[in-house]
Amino acid sequence: MTGVFHLPGNKRSAVVLVSGGLDSATVLALAHKQRFSCHAISFDYGQRHRVELEAAHRVTEALGVVEHRVMTIDWGNIGGSALTDTTIAVPEESGNGIPVTYVPARNTVFLSLALGWAEVIGARDIFIGVNAVDYSGYPDCRPEFIEAFERLANLATKAGVEGVKIRVHAPLIRLSKSQIIRKGIELGVDYSLTVSCYQPEQSGRACGRCDSCRLRRAGFAAARVQDPTRYVSC
Amino acid sequence: MTGVFHLPGNKRSAVVLVSGGLDSATVLALAHKQRFSCHAISFDYGQRHRVELEAAHRVTEALGVVEHRVMTIDWGNIGGSALTDTTIAVPEESGNGIPVTYVPARNTVFLSLALGWAEVIGARDIFIGVNAVDYSGYPDCRPEFIEAFERLANLATKAGVEGVKIRVHAPLIRLSKSQIIRKGIELGVDYSLTVSCYQPEQSGRACGRCDSCRLRRAGFAAARVQDPTRYVSC
Repeated sequence: MTGVFHLPGNKRSAVVLVSGGLDSATVLALAHKQRFSCHAISFDYGQRHRVELEAAHRVTEALGVVEHRVMTIDWGNIGGSALTDTTIAVPEESGNGIPVTYVPARNTVFLSLALGWAEVIGARDIFIGVNAVDYSGYPDCRPEFIEAFERLANLATKAGVEGVKIRVHAPLIRLSKSQIIRKGIELGVDYSLTVSCYQPEQSGRACGRCDSCRLRRAGFAAARVQDPTRYVSC
Repeated sequence: MTGVFHLPGNKRSAVVLVSGGLDSATVLALAHKQRFSCHAISFDYGQRHRVELEAAHRVTEALGVVEHRVMTIDWGNIGGSALTDTTIAVPEESGNGIPVTYVPARNTVFLSLALGWAEVIGARDIFIGVNAVDYSGYPDCRPEFIEAFERLANLATKAGVEGVKIRVHAPLIRLSKSQIIRKGIELGVDYSLTVSCYQPEQSGRACGRCDSCRLRRAGFAAARVQDPTRYVSC
């Protein structure tokens, strides 16, 4: 990297939540484009699609980060979601309302841990890839949630008390999946590295039927971009 | 228990954060008094005073809870606090500003996990023993933080979307330590079961010198209540 604005000393640090999926890979590329020095964070929270952590590692390697940390959360077997309780099946058809793949308070927990790390490294910017257009209706993906978390972050922390404004960036929140994909392609994101499926095979193939697969497939189709995902079914 | 209002079926469930310290024990007794069916939660977050988890167990046993869960958080060695990084010494004298025992975003993380559990069990009430009078100046113990978290909780969750109002109770927030102790004594709390010290000895004796010990000792003295704590120093 060259140019005065690219020198590490001139870059502001940001904590970027990287799940290993399509959206957060795009967000990481966007944070880079905005010249942030990116500190990636992923969560091992007992998710059935734990293979996404390997994808998170690939994505951070490919796009480059200052460091990538994985935090582990053991919820004490509270269950309550098809993603953290293997006795609840992942739905393969669209239904009404918030689906059972919703993990109670997940983004609140993730953003809180990201906030803690941001304070430790002196970052005042946090990036998250939530989206409220082509999404599963999770309450913690909506703009009003992000705004409320940002407000909380500025009251919760030493930085906030000292007058440092903490910002929570959700640059994809109002984009469709196809717009996200087109933006990522422009920025050089290799989506073959990412995993969206909630129940991938050991081999890495995606089920093609869960909500997350359906949103991903439809996004690539609408963007008229070749979907690099290996699906079990067509 | 007898009387129609005491029947479990008529009681509303609450999640109560129980650290093993003096404040949260008092809060648990208060939640009981308000006839909540209490689900206690504690956190194993790499704290140097991990012995407080044994105290949490004793307190929940003594006061009675529906269940007591311990959630584990591995922050990925981010450090940043004397409580989670043993290379940073616990201060033994009062200083200015927020002390190094502050754990970045700790109460945001704890309340988030409590919120997730509340959603799973259908509880709409969360109790936390924060205090903004005799405290160490931590930003996430102030009333404005609690209010902002409650607002967030109602946007973050399925319950909130469905119109169920989630409440975060912080009944000690404006009390002095001596008022808290007097209230606890009235409610039959046995403070000998609790641990406040940030750096207790293996034997269980408290250092008597850290901020938390100083606040506790002064609280018992001001309340004119015998302090049951075994201190190393006088």
